Amino acid sequence: MNFPLEHLENFTKNILLKIGCPENDAEVATKVLLSADLRGVDSHGVARLSGYVRLWEAKRINPTPSIRIVHESPSTAVVDGDGGLGLVVAPHAMNVAITKAKTAGTGWVSVKNSNHYGIAGIHAMQALQHDMVGISLTNASPLVSPTFSKERLLGTNPIAVAIPADKEPPFVLDMATTTAANGKLEILQRKGMEAPLGWIQDKDGQPTNNPYGVKEGGALLPLGGDREHGSHKGYGLGAIVDIFSAVFSGANYGPWVPPFVAFLEPDPNPVGEGLGHFFGAMRMDAFRPADEFKSHMDNWIRRFRSAQPVPGQDKVLIPGDPERELESERKLNGIPILAPVVEDLKALGKKLGVSW
Amino acid sequence: MNFPLEHLENFTKNILLKIGCPENDAEVATKVLLSADLRGVDSHGVARLSGYVRLWEAKRINPTPSIRIVHESPSTAVVDGDGGLGLVVAPHAMNVAITKAKTAGTGWVSVKNSNHYGIAGIHAMQALQHDMVGISLTNASPLVSPTFSKERLLGTNPIAVAIPADKEPPFVLDMATTTAANGKLEILQRKGMEAPLGWIQDKDGQPTNNPYGVKEGGALLPLGGDREHGSHKGYGLGAIVDIFSAVFSGANYGPWVPPFVAFLEPDPNPVGEGLGHFFGAMRMDAFRPADEFKSHMDNWIRRFRSAQPVPGQDKVLIPGDPERELESERKLNGIPILAPVVEDLKALGKKLGVSW
Repeated sequence: MNFPLEHLENFTKNILLKIGCPENDAEVATKVLLSADLRGVDSHGVARLSGYVRLWEAKRINPTPSIRIVHESPSTAVVDGDGGLGLVVAPHAMNVAITKAKTAGTGWVSVKNSNHYGIAGIHAMQALQHDMVGISLTNASPLVSPTFSKERLLGTNPIAVAIPADKEPPFVLDMATTTAANGKLEILQRKGMEAPLGWIQDKDGQPTNNPYGVKEGGALLPLGGDREHGSHKGYGLGAIVDIFSAVFSGANYGPWVPPFVAFLEPDPNPVGEGLGHFFGAMRMDAFRPADEFKSHMDNWIRRFRSAQPVPGQDKVLIPGDPERELESERKLNGIPILAPVVEDLKALGKKLGVSW
Repeated sequence: MNFPLEHLENFTKNILLKIGCPENDAEVATKVLLSADLRGVDSHGVARLSGYVRLWEAKRINPTPSIRIVHESPSTAVVDGDGGLGLVVAPHAMNVAITKAKTAGTGWVSVKNSNHYGIAGIHAMQALQHDMVGISLTNASPLVSPTFSKERLLGTNPIAVAIPADKEPPFVLDMATTTAANGKLEILQRKGMEAPLGWIQDKDGQPTNNPYGVKEGGALLPLGGDREHGSHKGYGLGAIVDIFSAVFSGANYGPWVPPFVAFLEPDPNPVGEGLGHFFGAMRMDAFRPADEFKSHMDNWIRRFRSAQPVPGQDKVLIPGDPERELESERKLNGIPILAPVVEDLKALGKKLGVSW
């Protein structure tokens, strides 16, 4: 079933108003949440709305946070999200990074006391309109086992980097530091297909094809999949994201990161506050004149896009190409939402008195 | 054959003096080069010395560079390496980043007109003694094909991040953005073994087990190995390293990066000057008090190190553990150098009048 963006926006905003978000916060959060659906990351969009509401019901989301800088230097800040929706805290903190970059050349903000912030890429892209490079990292509930570990100690901890070009669309990398995202397992489950080796391990720490392996106590694997294929590198990257997001700011890290699902309780002995993010903004002209920078980015993009493809493939893609194409298409034709998600949203609307 | 560090240091320094490096530069470059041998990255150490000399003979290395800042903001700089040895340019540029961080909280330096800089990690580690987090990236000669590309467009483009702790040794990630480094292929060639699938493709862009695949016109593959296992992520990371190192600074990027080997000519139509690096330094206390930061890093490291291992493995490692253990061992027992490398170094010494 396809729904126009506007329909989903109105519904989402009204739900957020019902849980007590101020008008402006509800609007910002709606844009961030729906950017996931527009860009094809369906697992991180409106399908999560009732998850956020359940966290609010469990008093684990503060709808009226007082988001503030608690530590700073000319090019850095630590932001306390005051338990607010990550969807609201993240754009605020990214804005602090952008403001710092205007005077210091770059701005770097680590955030504590936040929640799930939607897709990483949309926050990095906030820098583009200021002729800046944007960076966005976040830690997340532990679902990933480091190389050789039976225990889950890391989230899918994404890395997003957005780089402006001139005539070409921007370069936008937005990647989990795992081989495959959890959403891809759900697709395999629905289709009754096996997972490729290298995606997950079972509860005993053994490689498995079972797409339910994570649900049954196993774990997602770091990018690389196994030691021979470089999983220690994916683990290292996920660790960096965790440390920059939480050890820098005073949020929870590793296995202490609070779960997104409300039915699991956060650790009773936390090592910090909430979950953490990390944002960066770099003014292009802090390195070289912006027009020079952008024209070389155009050249970079064109050279890579025109590379000779391997047999059976049409072309080499630039990070951000698939999401941008999907965004154009979905703005035009609406956003496909799975029937169970529609049912869930209708029930949510009924409960909070918001018409679908 | 094992050689004491001091023997290799004296020889290396004397060779560098013979090609015209000033005393201090020769000392700095020797430390950087030999840190690779000490930390077990034998492919990037003294085995490369005659390669650097051949580049100098081809007039592609300037032994007396005037390294200078050509653009800056409070937290950034672009450094022109003036064609110097990367082994000398990199510590200089990292020092600029550290100096910026002292006043601005963080420092970010992109470098053009440089050469191969040894191992990435040693430059990131330069920040540790200043209670700073260090970051080091570099682009390199094109040996890697992006996902779906038959052409080689990227180098092994490493990412290194060094993070100080208190009682625990520092966290030091130093990783190529490929599944496997070129050095590992050489080991397989010597042993007559096949390469695992996911490491390389052949000259037609097809997966291959042939450990000579790259030499025969194929390419290394980005971390992930194939699209199903996330190679588009390894490609995206390698691309970021390339852009930060060269589009930021005005160095050559992608397929234009000059080859390390002197028998291959650089592109006659370069898009920039030399190859590029990128360095970052972040003061811990630009985010939170340094003692708080370091004690949480200790806690992070201890929790991960004590994770329950999968069957058949002793323990979960922290990035930097294997290299540090090797460094202690080699400082004590000397550095193993392969016979052909010893012969090569002896010949080099003879040619330049330096006794082995």
